Amino acid sequence: MRLLDHKFIQTIREHSLQEELLQGRFGLEKENVRVNQEGKLALTPHPEAFGNKLEHPYIQTDFSESQMEMITPTFESIEEAYYFLEALQDIVSHELMEKGEYLWPSSNPPMLPKENEIPIAQMNDPIADEYRHELADKYGRKRQLLSGIHYNFSFEERFLRKLHHIEGGSEEYKLFKDAVYFKVARNMLRYRWMLIYLTGASPVFDRTYMDICVATGHSDDNESYYFPNMNSLRNSSCGYRNTKPIRVSYDSAKEYVRDLKELIQKDELLSVKEFYSPVRIKTAKGIDPLQELLEDGVAYLELRFIDLNPLHKNGISIDTLRLIHFFLLFMLLKKDEPFSEQDQKMADLNHDQLITHGMTGHLHDIENSNKWMKETALTCIEEMEEMVALLFPEKEKYVQILENAKRKIRHPELSAASIVKSEIQKSSYLTYHLEKAKEYAEQSILAGYRFSGYEDLELSTQLLLKAAVKRGIKFEILDREENFVVLTKGNHKEYVKQATKTSLDSYSTVLIMENKVVTKAVLSQHGIRVPSGEVFHSLDEAKQSYDMYRGKPIVIKPKSTNFGLGITIFNEEYSREDMDKAFEIAFTHDRTVLLEEFMTGKEYRFLVMGDEVVGVLHRVPANVVGDGVHTIQELVHEKNKDPLRGRGYKTPLEKIQLGDSEEMFLKNHNKGWNDIPAKEEVIYLRENSNISTGGDSIDYTDEVDVSYMRIAIQSAKAAGATICGVDMMIDDVHVQATESNYSVIEINFNPAIHIHCYPYKGKNRKANEKVLDLLFNKGQL
Amino acid sequence: MRLLDHKFIQTIREHSLQEELLQGRFGLEKENVRVNQEGKLALTPHPEAFGNKLEHPYIQTDFSESQMEMITPTFESIEEAYYFLEALQDIVSHELMEKGEYLWPSSNPPMLPKENEIPIAQMNDPIADEYRHELADKYGRKRQLLSGIHYNFSFEERFLRKLHHIEGGSEEYKLFKDAVYFKVARNMLRYRWMLIYLTGASPVFDRTYMDICVATGHSDDNESYYFPNMNSLRNSSCGYRNTKPIRVSYDSAKEYVRDLKELIQKDELLSVKEFYSPVRIKTAKGIDPLQELLEDGVAYLELRFIDLNPLHKNGISIDTLRLIHFFLLFMLLKKDEPFSEQDQKMADLNHDQLITHGMTGHLHDIENSNKWMKETALTCIEEMEEMVALLFPEKEKYVQILENAKRKIRHPELSAASIVKSEIQKSSYLTYHLEKAKEYAEQSILAGYRFSGYEDLELSTQLLLKAAVKRGIKFEILDREENFVVLTKGNHKEYVKQATKTSLDSYSTVLIMENKVVTKAVLSQHGIRVPSGEVFHSLDEAKQSYDMYRGKPIVIKPKSTNFGLGITIFNEEYSREDMDKAFEIAFTHDRTVLLEEFMTGKEYRFLVMGDEVVGVLHRVPANVVGDGVHTIQELVHEKNKDPLRGRGYKTPLEKIQLGDSEEMFLKNHNKGWNDIPAKEEVIYLRENSNISTGGDSIDYTDEVDVSYMRIAIQSAKAAGATICGVDMMIDDVHVQATESNYSVIEINFNPAIHIHCYPYKGKNRKANEKVLDLLFNKGQL
Repeated sequence: MRLLDHKFIQTIREHSLQEELLQGRFGLEKENVRVNQEGKLALTPHPEAFGNKLEHPYIQTDFSESQMEMITPTFESIEEAYYFLEALQDIVSHELMEKGEYLWPSSNPPMLPKENEIPIAQMNDPIADEYRHELADKYGRKRQLLSGIHYNFSFEERFLRKLHHIEGGSEEYKLFKDAVYFKVARNMLRYRWMLIYLTGASPVFDRTYMDICVATGHSDDNESYYFPNMNSLRNSSCGYRNTKPIRVSYDSAKEYVRDLKELIQKDELLSVKEFYSPVRIKTAKGIDPLQELLEDGVAYLELRFIDLNPLHKNGISIDTLRLIHFFLLFMLLKKDEPFSEQDQKMADLNHDQLITHGMTGHLHDIENSNKWMKETALTCIEEMEEMVALLFPEKEKYVQILENAKRKIRHPELSAASIVKSEIQKSSYLTYHLEKAKEYAEQSILAGYRFSGYEDLELSTQLLLKAAVKRGIKFEILDREENFVVLTKGNHKEYVKQATKTSLDSYSTVLIMENKVVTKAVLSQHGIRVPSGEVFHSLDEAKQSYDMYRGKPIVIKPKSTNFGLGITIFNEEYSREDMDKAFEIAFTHDRTVLLEEFMTGKEYRFLVMGDEVVGVLHRVPANVVGDGVHTIQELVHEKNKDPLRGRGYKTPLEKIQLGDSEEMFLKNHNKGWNDIPAKEEVIYLRENSNISTGGDSIDYTDEVDVSYMRIAIQSAKAAGATICGVDMMIDDVHVQATESNYSVIEINFNPAIHIHCYPYKGKNRKANEKVLDLLFNKGQL
Repeated sequence: MRLLDHKFIQTIREHSLQEELLQGRFGLEKENVRVNQEGKLALTPHPEAFGNKLEHPYIQTDFSESQMEMITPTFESIEEAYYFLEALQDIVSHELMEKGEYLWPSSNPPMLPKENEIPIAQMNDPIADEYRHELADKYGRKRQLLSGIHYNFSFEERFLRKLHHIEGGSEEYKLFKDAVYFKVARNMLRYRWMLIYLTGASPVFDRTYMDICVATGHSDDNESYYFPNMNSLRNSSCGYRNTKPIRVSYDSAKEYVRDLKELIQKDELLSVKEFYSPVRIKTAKGIDPLQELLEDGVAYLELRFIDLNPLHKNGISIDTLRLIHFFLLFMLLKKDEPFSEQDQKMADLNHDQLITHGMTGHLHDIENSNKWMKETALTCIEEMEEMVALLFPEKEKYVQILENAKRKIRHPELSAASIVKSEIQKSSYLTYHLEKAKEYAEQSILAGYRFSGYEDLELSTQLLLKAAVKRGIKFEILDREENFVVLTKGNHKEYVKQATKTSLDSYSTVLIMENKVVTKAVLSQHGIRVPSGEVFHSLDEAKQSYDMYRGKPIVIKPKSTNFGLGITIFNEEYSREDMDKAFEIAFTHDRTVLLEEFMTGKEYRFLVMGDEVVGVLHRVPANVVGDGVHTIQELVHEKNKDPLRGRGYKTPLEKIQLGDSEEMFLKNHNKGWNDIPAKEEVIYLRENSNISTGGDSIDYTDEVDVSYMRIAIQSAKAAGATICGVDMMIDDVHVQATESNYSVIEINFNPAIHIHCYPYKGKNRKANEKVLDLLFNKGQL
């Protein structure tokens, strides 16, 4: 049996179309039902945090109010689609967990209430609501709760265009393109049983599922049921399929449309949407699919037979996505075969046979009656290996994926369904899946600060985009390196750089904050206490100030400075010569030098957004707290295990380093790595409190006296700022502000928001959500 | 006669108070009547351009609608006050000249209409209007038109505080301060005749002046009149003074207030404002001066006897201002003397004697009857010289100023009054002053782009501030180096950096414009034509594009670049290797490289403000146009004489240089400095069209087809910009925009405005005024 069309492959090689063949557009849709802490179907409404489910592009409900649907945009790579799905999974899990709910990780439903207690999704749309009720009556609500993954795929347009050109281009391009997709659809329908075997993962179901299935199933514990060797309930007759088989021509778009129209006319289908083919032919707009198909042709294919895999947090692994992609390419490069009604029937039989008996090794391939299904499956994979060898010899990872598939075919106990089943046997259907649900939710929480697939962006931007996705605001990255995005909701566009550089602040406001001298002038004009002092433009002028300040603690610093260069602090007695020297140093760094009173107290960052202080943070230098047992070095290692700590600013906190600076600091304090600090003794390892050198961020939002909050807001207003970080020196945050116990040091126009979301100690202040509240007017959401 | 209080001087030296003594606060007020082209009093209303004269802090009317009053803020140096006065002079002259009017440079009025035809200022305030009418009845409208300069002075507060401290501080500070000012006032009143001599400059008056004065005056031409040796009509009995002498105690604030209250009660004065003392005691607020004087004490002194000096554009020279300051300090450091009613009478006699006879050398000082006035005057100057020698020995320039004063005392023909009179004799009163008025107006126009005293600021900022001053918007410079100012009108504050960085644009808008990739994306999303092209993040990816672009003219450039580094232009045939090389070069400058189609046409800058294109400019490389006679070198010298051309960006255009680059450019075109170009032949001297290398700016605002204006505005709106410079390549500005004959290259968020105000060829587009229109809502002005 030779399946590959070697002439076709030769054409691709000759025209170097390999890369373009490998490209394509990918989108994923995934359903999961919500469950409560006990694994019962959650009867609560779709969470408000996700906004209007009719308008949300990514997070909706499917049939039931309790059935969430996560939809990725279309991407140019599998990786992007997969990571976006992961982000949706994380976002949804995070939100649900706050309400004690989880995403059920199986395609088969959890513990269900009575049929009529299953809530149908409220769409606030009479037509949509009516449609759901009709389906409920026809198929049963329980059946409708079966969940799965839809895999949307199209070839790279450029690839098809080139191919069309190569083939002579005499045919109309639309017809050529349709022919390609219909070929793939035919082949895919014929061989779908293989992918169902490789992706099936719903072998067991709960006793609360449909009576007829329970009645005919086996059970070991009277809690859950199964059919021997069944790997996907969802793809079985107990699953979701048309009540009687629907067969239409796949020879061309025209014939396909003709047949479907006829079925609708005969009332065998409510609408084209009710045609539950495992492979759907899709158009771009999808409003009037049949008409669009005739006019514009096929836009993409939708594979609908993929189970949720409870072995993976996101319901599917990236390698499975790649395998399916390869299978699709194989379906294109395979020789064409007729696909008559008879052929379709045989494909359906293969499908059902696979479902009920699995790859048991003694099933004949109905189509190739001299072959076992297992043999056919292995042949296909081997042909795919040949395809890879001929077209993508340098892509090692593909070989691995195909090897894995072969192993699963040869050893059915390695298939997902088998593994899931054996795990269930060790505990129970409900316990196993509920534990998985909770485990995955925890994983989502831990990765909460990260937007999978966008880890190259700053944390603040990742958090903002996740919040946007959560509430259905679309985004587009305009400049990745610069963290420059545009957010879109309806007609409302917002351009945002680095999460907090937005249209909410005017340019002049930013310029005020950027300039220390101007900031001070503006703040003090508004009656806000700033370090008093003077500005000098010449050394001579500066030196004359000694008599004025003698004896007072002061700081001398260049107007613009980084890393503390050129700064001298005098907090003890100092001579005229000392001061002259300090000015001389400062003037080597800038033409303008500031003399400021030295401020006492501790520094706090107030994150102001609109009329509100969203969070207050205090930073503490890298430190460990003794337990009387472990050495400083051991305590550092222990503290560094916190998943919030990483390296290279990809996490909210940085690992404490065991470097020279830390060692020197310890030495200067007569300590060493192997000292064992007393219980509760705090050992500092750095002078500076930067997060980037292992410092801790401590949330003080609920500690700080409200008077300081007011001052922070006044400071922001004085500068005209909507979003800013106000840095304040405060003697004691619990004591009300007076004229002398605080001072505003500076205002920052690009405050990091992630530090307020993931502090070392304290609550997530959801600063990312606040940015969106302000940008998209909270009231409208 | 020893006048100086040497003990006092010793105290100042001992406590090193010299610098603080020399400091102080200075403010100037200057009146000028407006005249038309013929030197007749302008009967037009106060120009609308200056906004509401009741609210304008700098430009108002005085008694008559035709009498302008320019008021400087209070400054810490004479220089600042003087330059601000100059700016006001320039601004007002510029505006008046557009209407064919001038500022009359003499204290004595121009050709006047009949008494009742002189328009009294319309203040839209019944009380103010009533007051002016009362004065008109009492003093006559013609007398009221006499104009002069008021010099407001106070000591540096720190100086007075220290002095108070040194003197024991037993007395209340307010009383101490009052005593200081009253001492200075007494001395100043006693010796005012000296300053009147040194500043008097109104020796001649027109025949249309008050009949009684004309009747008693001499005339050589029956056109103008004078009194022999009179140097200041304004300070004479024909001038503006109380109808009968008012004498009050200057011994203390309390006695001063008591006497004035009594006079008002007796109806000898309408109000305290009618007390026309040559030296006025002033309070800070000035609403209820007598009460304020008792409560808060003296704030400053106002010298009211200074004539407009027609020999100076600004009506007074900076050295005269310095001389008066020194005289004030001398009045402080002089021994105290009683100032009884009898003493005041003698001072008045000295004043009148000086006025009528001048420093003729045979007048006795009434107070020191054994001395000639000239002798007393010289003694004073000598004592002042001693004061300078004791306190400010290093200040050379003061010595010079005092030398000059001595010279004028010794040689009356050198006094301003004498010079003015002799000049008048050479032509006529009207002609002389009108010519001066026109000459000064021309000077003001030529300096139009410059704000005297603020020349260190960028031209755009200077122009903005001048426009602000014109319409009565106050400003404060927050950071000189950064051109950062705050503009204030009532409660409305606007922070502006570099003239066009304002609150009108949001931060995100600026960030869009700052990023070429994002700008292009946003513009093309809005259907605006930008150079097509691609963005590459890796060399490999970039190199694959050859097939796509082969044969098309393209530009390859790093994403961020300055000075054209790393840019390659291919506008002829190029090979794959050429292109690879170009990409390699570009990637050494940036991680992101752009490939863009090469645009034809010429580049134009559209200055967009709000919904309007304010100006369109095209820049041409440095060039000269031949006349068939002069060499290139000579033509450059000639072109460089344009006062708009300077060096170091202090002028709207830069001088063309005769440098190596220009010589090389000429050589490459087979030309040399000594070639004589044909008539109308254009010789370019540079490749680049930058203004900074001598390029010309040509205004095309009235040339460009309106379709491009619309595109520029759309581009600004797409980026959300209120103020920006849209750079467009246009094939032919006279041909309507199509889909292919233009392209927007970039949008700039900090467009220079001065280039549109002072182009090489074309109109002043008043871009500075437009900024203010937008910031302060045109409708409200």
